[in-house]
Amino acid sequence: MLLLIPGPVQTRPEVRAAMAVDIAPWDRGFMPEYAGIREKVRDLAGGIAGQHACLPLQGAGHFITEAAIRTFVPAGAKLLLVMNGTYADRMARLAREAGRVVVPLAVPDHRSVTPAEVAEVLAADPAIGHVGIVYSETGSGIVNDVPGVGAAVRTAGRRMIVDAVSAFGALPFDLKAQPEVDAVVFTSNKCIEGLPGIGFAVCPIDRVTACAGNAGSWSFDLADIYATALRAGWGSFRFTPPVQALHAFGKALEFFQAEGGQPARHARYRENARLLHEGVRALGLKPYLDWDHQGPIIVTVHQPADPRFTLMEFVEALKTRGVLISNFYNTPVPTMRIGCIGDIHAEDIRFALRAIAETLDGMGIRQRDAA
Amino acid sequence: MLLLIPGPVQTRPEVRAAMAVDIAPWDRGFMPEYAGIREKVRDLAGGIAGQHACLPLQGAGHFITEAAIRTFVPAGAKLLLVMNGTYADRMARLAREAGRVVVPLAVPDHRSVTPAEVAEVLAADPAIGHVGIVYSETGSGIVNDVPGVGAAVRTAGRRMIVDAVSAFGALPFDLKAQPEVDAVVFTSNKCIEGLPGIGFAVCPIDRVTACAGNAGSWSFDLADIYATALRAGWGSFRFTPPVQALHAFGKALEFFQAEGGQPARHARYRENARLLHEGVRALGLKPYLDWDHQGPIIVTVHQPADPRFTLMEFVEALKTRGVLISNFYNTPVPTMRIGCIGDIHAEDIRFALRAIAETLDGMGIRQRDAA
Repeated sequence: MLLLIPGPVQTRPEVRAAMAVDIAPWDRGFMPEYAGIREKVRDLAGGIAGQHACLPLQGAGHFITEAAIRTFVPAGAKLLLVMNGTYADRMARLAREAGRVVVPLAVPDHRSVTPAEVAEVLAADPAIGHVGIVYSETGSGIVNDVPGVGAAVRTAGRRMIVDAVSAFGALPFDLKAQPEVDAVVFTSNKCIEGLPGIGFAVCPIDRVTACAGNAGSWSFDLADIYATALRAGWGSFRFTPPVQALHAFGKALEFFQAEGGQPARHARYRENARLLHEGVRALGLKPYLDWDHQGPIIVTVHQPADPRFTLMEFVEALKTRGVLISNFYNTPVPTMRIGCIGDIHAEDIRFALRAIAETLDGMGIRQRDAA
Repeated sequence: MLLLIPGPVQTRPEVRAAMAVDIAPWDRGFMPEYAGIREKVRDLAGGIAGQHACLPLQGAGHFITEAAIRTFVPAGAKLLLVMNGTYADRMARLAREAGRVVVPLAVPDHRSVTPAEVAEVLAADPAIGHVGIVYSETGSGIVNDVPGVGAAVRTAGRRMIVDAVSAFGALPFDLKAQPEVDAVVFTSNKCIEGLPGIGFAVCPIDRVTACAGNAGSWSFDLADIYATALRAGWGSFRFTPPVQALHAFGKALEFFQAEGGQPARHARYRENARLLHEGVRALGLKPYLDWDHQGPIIVTVHQPADPRFTLMEFVEALKTRGVLISNFYNTPVPTMRIGCIGDIHAEDIRFALRAIAETLDGMGIRQRDAA
């Protein structure tokens, strides 16, 4: 089965195989491996040894996002959120339920927010301490202008939290160039192409230590994770993690670096997205985004306007041809989401496009005239 | 390497092998498997279909414990905690940082609390709504009298949260017989012998729905997990889980049932503990607990009173003989912790005892006179 989904992604066999092992996470034999992963991730984020720290947390992307909000935004404080997709909605719910005050900035879901839009809201409300932004929205497939918005946040003297869950490793990011960022967060199972189970935040050390006591949750306190990661030199994971996912992530990082790191991965995903965007149009389908706004992570496509089409039936039929796409959508209108990330290459996309064509043919709803 | 640790435990090769696969957790093909696991776990806890629900949460045991406290104990409300070990200390910190008021009941760490001790505190303070208790403490190795304490809580008209992380599947537990229990929590990587990454709470459905809105954390809201697990009939995991650990846990449950379920597992671990308790005494070492108070999960042993002994050195030397024990301890005095759980059998314990003897000999500190 070819997984064309925005995560957990299709992994390399060698990465999956690394899961099948028992590991004691606190064992001295594992500590150098754990420390090495933290250092590689910090470097990937543009972090500097001694100034930035990679802070891992077991669980889903929602967890590391909640942890970042709790740690850096004090209870009762204001967080401006750029609302142009489902993951922004989720960030808002995480923040509100944690007792933080969300100031929503509504933006259409088919384009990035502009730095000027953010600057305007910040200028109008000095009580807003933080801006939260989703780098890549896997509902529509857009990419927000994180460097540009970051510059506006920096100019305004505020701080930023970046949800880079589906972006990190593919889209460029540099903490050195973005000192306004308190945390960039992501997970093991997206563009680094590992298995799910571990979230990561990369943070300036002075900020994370200054924010000790904010979290209101021991489990989600990044300052306490930092203290634990420092302990005994190399440090140990705080509480038992899905350590197999961590081990496999280390293997995935090796392949990531061997491929050429972020630029190479970005290029491969971008080409996957281009082939998909072009290919679905050739089949008479309409992408949700114009190519100008299309990110490299996921191509979202309008469902055929045919009463015989249901997404679940299409997804199940496509599975019989060896391709799995997402069976739910997050846009205001009915769409289908086809992932470009994971161990997926141009020939896989071509195979998937043939399978999509055949499946639509089989359902009797291929729009041949448009092709 | 033989893992004699209180988790993550040594697993069967077939269970580990089940980790090496890509899975889309929301795929229809996986939903029956996920539903089947929830039903088996509910049944194992003595739950009844339609009355009790198994609510899984990604992450460590600390996370599912915090989720249970947040969901059932409102912010600002009082939680009596039986304090006779490290995991009780941790429950207290989780509760306090979440803004719950902890009423500690200090009990020596070498015996269970008595129902009378709990009843007395509850009678004196009607504002205490909940009692939290750790079923098996993996610092000392004691087992608390959960059924007895539960009866006292029931009589007093209060509710109980049971941290059964290192007990569930080995020690008996029956939700039907303990209607005072709001949640019994445990993880995938202890006595069911799966891999780490998933926590479980089994709860009465009427209680979890009545407690919607308490959590103050979307991530840790069991009421929201219940709502999601019900969605679309079979339900889907809420947020991406370490799905490989879930899949392997399903495989581990098959072996658990084939072995004879909880009574058989209890008997095997009890025999492991007996061999260890007897074996270390034969080597001139002193177990931390008398046999009368010794639980079947972990045997804690005083470190030899020899200045040449350091725990880390001993653990590393023992590893060269193929045995890994815990390299830290949680008792007031220096001890070492040897696990009895996991895919560990009598011959493994005998092998480990020989390795321990040889390692102490190698360090020149075996206390032969006591043998």
